[in-house]
Amino acid sequence: MAYYTQENHGPYEMFDLGDFALASGEKLNACQLAYSTFGTLNAAKDNAVLITTWWSGTSKIMETTYTGAGRALDPAKYFIIIANQLGSGVSTSPNNANAGQAKAKFPRLAIADDVCAQHRLVTGKFGIRQLALVFGGSMGAQQTYEWAVRYPEMVKRIAALAGTTRCSDYSRLFSQTLREAMTSDAGFNNGEYGESSEVAEGLKRLATLMSVSGWCPEFYRHEIWKTLGFASVPEFKTNFMEGYFAPMDPNVLIAEITKWQGHDVARAQGGDLAKALGSIKAKTLILQIENDLMFPLDDCRDDQEMIPGAQLCVIKSRCGHLGLFAIEPDYSTQFDHNVGELLAS
Amino acid sequence: MAYYTQENHGPYEMFDLGDFALASGEKLNACQLAYSTFGTLNAAKDNAVLITTWWSGTSKIMETTYTGAGRALDPAKYFIIIANQLGSGVSTSPNNANAGQAKAKFPRLAIADDVCAQHRLVTGKFGIRQLALVFGGSMGAQQTYEWAVRYPEMVKRIAALAGTTRCSDYSRLFSQTLREAMTSDAGFNNGEYGESSEVAEGLKRLATLMSVSGWCPEFYRHEIWKTLGFASVPEFKTNFMEGYFAPMDPNVLIAEITKWQGHDVARAQGGDLAKALGSIKAKTLILQIENDLMFPLDDCRDDQEMIPGAQLCVIKSRCGHLGLFAIEPDYSTQFDHNVGELLAS
Repeated sequence: MAYYTQENHGPYEMFDLGDFALASGEKLNACQLAYSTFGTLNAAKDNAVLITTWWSGTSKIMETTYTGAGRALDPAKYFIIIANQLGSGVSTSPNNANAGQAKAKFPRLAIADDVCAQHRLVTGKFGIRQLALVFGGSMGAQQTYEWAVRYPEMVKRIAALAGTTRCSDYSRLFSQTLREAMTSDAGFNNGEYGESSEVAEGLKRLATLMSVSGWCPEFYRHEIWKTLGFASVPEFKTNFMEGYFAPMDPNVLIAEITKWQGHDVARAQGGDLAKALGSIKAKTLILQIENDLMFPLDDCRDDQEMIPGAQLCVIKSRCGHLGLFAIEPDYSTQFDHNVGELLAS
Repeated sequence: MAYYTQENHGPYEMFDLGDFALASGEKLNACQLAYSTFGTLNAAKDNAVLITTWWSGTSKIMETTYTGAGRALDPAKYFIIIANQLGSGVSTSPNNANAGQAKAKFPRLAIADDVCAQHRLVTGKFGIRQLALVFGGSMGAQQTYEWAVRYPEMVKRIAALAGTTRCSDYSRLFSQTLREAMTSDAGFNNGEYGESSEVAEGLKRLATLMSVSGWCPEFYRHEIWKTLGFASVPEFKTNFMEGYFAPMDPNVLIAEITKWQGHDVARAQGGDLAKALGSIKAKTLILQIENDLMFPLDDCRDDQEMIPGAQLCVIKSRCGHLGLFAIEPDYSTQFDHNVGELLAS
C-alpha cells in the first residue's frame, strides 16, 4: 500500500524482534517494530519518554502533534521514542507480513504484544532501565496503562489520554460498528482484497461513523469543522473524513480494532482489575477530552479511583475524542501544561 | 410483511386521504393514515390529545408505554388519538403502497406531510378545533413541533420528548449511519428486495449501531441490560436488539429516516427558525432524557430559548435515547408527573 511509507509516516527505523511470541500463543514471524526517536539519550539514561500510537495513527502524527521545541515533550530535553503499533501498516502488519501471515491470515494481536515488543526495544536497543514517561492517546492510552501494570518498576510516570484501562462493553460495541463498516463491503472479500480502493464504500461508511462519534455534537453545533477550511458539513465529510480513511488498509484497521476490543490490563493479574491497577507505581495523569463519545469520562473516573494517587484532568474541547488531533488553538497549551507539571513532579 | 399487522401493532383504523399532496410536490396515491383512539371525545371537543410516533414505532408502543388508567394520559379523561407515521409500515408505506409507488418507488416524505395528514384526520374525521395536547418522542417530537408551528391556534399544549425542532448536522450524520447499514447490504438491491430477511445482515448492523448510540455508556456501565433478563451483552444484543429490528422493512425504516434527516420547522416560515419558534402559542414542555446521544440536550436548550415560555425538564435515566421505551421503573413516574402538570396548567 502506497500509504504506509516513510514519505507519509516517517522518519522511522526498524527494530528486529525475530519470530515474536504473541499473547495468543501464535508467533508473528520476522516481526519488525517501526519506531522513531527524537533528541538524545543522556548518560544516566533517565530522560527517555516513550510515546505510543492510536488507532489508524503512526509515529508521524504523534511527533507533529505532541512533541516539539518549547513544548512539554521537547526533544532538546528528552529522548523521545515513538513506537508504531504492531499491525499499524508500518510495523509488521497485514499489508507487509510474510505471505503466510498476510491479509486475512495475520495473527490476532493484543495490546500486551505491543508493550512486550516496546519493552524489548527500550531495554534491548537502548539499555534504558526506567522511562521518565510513557504517554499515549486512545489506543495509545491502552498501551500506556499496560506498561504501568506489566512493568511497574520501569515506568516513572504515565500520561494516559482519552483512553481506559480496559475496553468497556460500550466501546467494544462502538468499535464493532467500525469493523462491520469494512467487513460488510463485498469488496472486502474476508480480507483478501488487492487494494484498499476495492473496499472504498466500506471505508466511506467508516468515515461516516467516525464523523459522528469521533467528533461530537458540540463539534457540529459550533461548526468547528469550519476552522478546518470547509464550507459545509458534506464537504468536510467528503474531503476530510473520507479523504483521511480512503488510503488506509482495512486489514490494518481491523487488526488494531481486535487489540482495542480485547484489551484489559487485568489480564496481567489473573483478571483482577483492582489488583492490576492497585499495583501501578507510576505517577499517573489521566487526561480526558471533553465531550469524548468513544471513551466516556465516567470510565476514566473509575480508572482513577483504582490507581493509587492518580490525577484526572479534563481538557476543555468542543471536538470530543478527535480533539486528539489538536485542531483547537488551546488544546496543545492545556496538554503541555498538564504533562509539563507531571514531568516536573 | 407479516410484521406490520393488526395483531402486532393494532388496534388501528384507516383514515382515507385520497391522492395526498406531499411537500415534495409529488402525491402519495390512495393514501391511508392508520390511527388508534382511546377514550371518548367530550361534547365540547376539548379533551383531545394527539400522540405521534417515533422512528420504527407504531401506535401500539405509544399506547402501552405512555397511556393508561391512572396515568397522565388517561383514556378515562382524554380522547387520545395515536397517529402512525406515513411510511411507517401500517399507514401507506413502501411495503403496502400501490405498485407504482411501492418499495424503491415510494415518494420522498416530510414531517410536514404527517402533520398535514394528521390535521385532516383531527379536523375532518372528528371535528376537533383545538387539541389539548400534542405529544411525541424522538421523530414524534419533530411532528409535535411541526404541529405547534403550522397550526399555532389549534394546539393548546405540546410535550416534545427527546427530539428537536430541526435535524442537526450531527443527527443527520448519525441517521445516515443507520441508512448506510441497510443500503450497504447487497441483498437490499436498491430497495427492490422481496423479504426483510434478504437484508438480514444490514438489519443486524443497524442493531449494532442502535446498541451503541440508541442506548448510552451509562446503560452498559451500570448493566441496565440485565434488567431486561439477559445474562451477557452479546446475548442482549442478539436477542433484544437484533430481534427487534430483524422483522422490520428496511424501506420503511429508510422512508422515515428521510423525514428525520430533512426536518426543519423553519421551512414553514421561509427558513427563519427564530420566527417559526417565536410563533408558537402552545404551552411548551420540552422533555429530554439524560444521556441521550441521538438528540443531545444542548440542542433542546437552543429550542427552549427560542420558544416563548418553554419549560425544559430532564428525565433522570441511565438509558439515553431508548429510555423512551420506559424500561426503568421511575421513568413513567417522571413522565406522568411532568405531563400531568402541563395538562393541569
